[in-house]
Amino acid sequence: PREFRIVVLPGDGIGPEVVGEAVKVLQAVSDASTEFKLNLETHDFGGCAIVKHGEPLIPTTFQACKEADAIILGAIGGPQWGVDAKVRPEPGFLKLRKALGLYANIRPANLASDALLEYTPLKPDRARGVNMIVIRELIGGAYFGPRKEQNVEPEPDSAWDTMVYSVSEVERITRVAAQIALAANPPLEIHSIDKANVLASSRLWRKVVTETLTKEYPQIKFDHHLVDAAAMFIVSQPKKLNGVILTENLFGDILSDQSSVIPGSLGLLPSASLPAPPSLPGPNFKPTPGLYEPIHGSAPDIAGQGIANPIGTILSAAMLLRYSLGLEKPAKAIEEAVRKVLDTTESGGHGLRTKDLGGSVTTKELGDKIVEVV
Amino acid sequence: PREFRIVVLPGDGIGPEVVGEAVKVLQAVSDASTEFKLNLETHDFGGCAIVKHGEPLIPTTFQACKEADAIILGAIGGPQWGVDAKVRPEPGFLKLRKALGLYANIRPANLASDALLEYTPLKPDRARGVNMIVIRELIGGAYFGPRKEQNVEPEPDSAWDTMVYSVSEVERITRVAAQIALAANPPLEIHSIDKANVLASSRLWRKVVTETLTKEYPQIKFDHHLVDAAAMFIVSQPKKLNGVILTENLFGDILSDQSSVIPGSLGLLPSASLPAPPSLPGPNFKPTPGLYEPIHGSAPDIAGQGIANPIGTILSAAMLLRYSLGLEKPAKAIEEAVRKVLDTTESGGHGLRTKDLGGSVTTKELGDKIVEVV
Ligand SMILES: CC(C)[C@H](C(=O)O)[C@@H](O)C(=O)O
Ligand SMILES: CC(C)[C@H](C(=O)O)[C@@H](O)C(=O)O
Repeated sequence: PREFRIVVLPGDGIGPEVVGEAVKVLQAVSDASTEFKLNLETHDFGGCAIVKHGEPLIPTTFQACKEADAIILGAIGGPQWGVDAKVRPEPGFLKLRKALGLYANIRPANLASDALLEYTPLKPDRARGVNMIVIRELIGGAYFGPRKEQNVEPEPDSAWDTMVYSVSEVERITRVAAQIALAANPPLEIHSIDKANVLASSRLWRKVVTETLTKEYPQIKFDHHLVDAAAMFIVSQPKKLNGVILTENLFGDILSDQSSVIPGSLGLLPSASLPAPPSLPGPNFKPTPGLYEPIHGSAPDIAGQGIANPIGTILSAAMLLRYSLGLEKPAKAIEEAVRKVLDTTESGGHGLRTKDLGGSVTTKELGDKIVEVV
Repeated sequence: PREFRIVVLPGDGIGPEVVGEAVKVLQAVSDASTEFKLNLETHDFGGCAIVKHGEPLIPTTFQACKEADAIILGAIGGPQWGVDAKVRPEPGFLKLRKALGLYANIRPANLASDALLEYTPLKPDRARGVNMIVIRELIGGAYFGPRKEQNVEPEPDSAWDTMVYSVSEVERITRVAAQIALAANPPLEIHSIDKANVLASSRLWRKVVTETLTKEYPQIKFDHHLVDAAAMFIVSQPKKLNGVILTENLFGDILSDQSSVIPGSLGLLPSASLPAPPSLPGPNFKPTPGLYEPIHGSAPDIAGQGIANPIGTILSAAMLLRYSLGLEKPAKAIEEAVRKVLDTTESGGHGLRTKDLGGSVTTKELGDKIVEVV
């Protein structure tokens, strides 16, 4: 069988709990197959690495990530690493993203099941049918531009960050959005978000997105929205933005988190971060490494209680199989199993739900059930 | 009677329509008083000034704004001035804000009446009781930092903007938030929003907010949220952010627009932009000029139809009376009149509502009714 090296980074807070369930699912899928074998290896990363080794991204973890076919991550951070702490988990994460060239962050936000309408903050008629995929540029913009901290010359009394984009950075993320749009039939519409009425970097963004899509993907429909208007639409008329939302790093951070509450629980949503446009499974599949993680954080308030929702991480494992390994069948099987479990309404309505969705099953029970159904 | 000079900038799209109603209300208040007199004068600004004079902010308008006791604005912009247009309305607006030193943008977002629960996109239990006041820094950050357009040396293939804040810029906007918090009894809580886990300018922001509030306003409770988390809360649990939301220019642009959809219609919400902390009406009132405008845009799609909701502009006129002129009584009277009109449910439920709120009264009819009730 083909062998794949999968690096597992449990991280902090509820990270180890949710990753544990995704690992069980991946292991089950691997055990059941004669065609491929997943070799899973766990490494320290984030706050736990600071505690054990003094830094968030240690060389062995870094090396393993560089060599892996794919990485699955739980979450990093916690209250002990405030923004004033000398050593913090986030810079290690930003360094990993940058070093691996993971410029394309893919975050679907859709309602997995109408049974969840009860949990969305929106009125049901606004949330039903929401189906957005946010494509966030992940290694450019204000996150990585030149910056100056306060108390540093010149001007010790001010601090700044630079939102910077080059033409080629915008071109490549636009191509990722286009590939995702073309994976659907008919192709999804692309909504590009910027603040071109004020920012120079946004004017470049808008121009390059327009040129790239017009020249290379004439079959895809697209439009542009200002980020403030988009932030309104996502709440008031989210279906207007159904399709692919394409945006830069900082706007993507904000808008993807905002979108992620519509499906009812953060705990449900997966993400992928890739160094190239995704290749779709099939005869022409080209493997690409990638990092997969749920969109929720380390949730220190519920860590250690065994009640976190593992679905976001399990669905991230499905994305891993699809985008990094080209294994569409087990990917689909996992997604189907999750949907079935979410739709299950044993004992009066809330069969297999963790606490965030009004249920009382544990992280482990839900993981076991999904393994059983897969 | 004391005389005040009020500059009226109708602007573009529905601007002239909604400003027309606010002017009627201000005129009525002035006519009814023996103590003060408002001298209203109208000037060209924005897209209409480009059409007539070739530039958005002409010298006579600029001079009048500098000398005015207060300014009331409709909205600017329209589809004919895309981001590629040679001359655009926005730079004129940014120049006016900067030249007048209007660093403090105040935007309340609250549900004016439970009768509007029908129109909020959120489930009623989430929207009922929402009461946020966004304080947005308005003349700093990425809007005004050094920038480079694409096609300009060095690096003709990239473009950048600088998010920059100085200590004194953050101090003064923090004091505005504190004054607004202290106008309530007990004082409102302050929620400061930044991205301090990534951005240098946000680390300065967080530090200065903390120091200023701790030293100068020990009686005010405050906390910090990351902008991505805040964008989630505003949708999922907006009441968690009840109180004062304090943030920098770009985050404030996004979050205030996002918050503004919760009350059911953008058409309802006013704003004030001030060059100093607001002074509250009373014996110690210190007049400060300011610019007042509804938070909605020029809405070219419904311009000229007489159906725009004038309430946001009329409530902006009330803020003008309160903050710039110290006239609390007529300010309250206008707010009361608006609430009464919104609560009115003649002929089966939708008495006096414009189209955005499911009604069919015209802009003018609603303005007339408010004048009558005031
Ligand atoms: C942890 C943090 C640096 C990160 C980000 O802002 O990118 C997180 O919020 C995310 O969205 O993955
Ligand atoms: C017109 C535009 C420059 C402006 C801004 O972004 O500040 C507007 O969106 C606002 O919020 O007042």
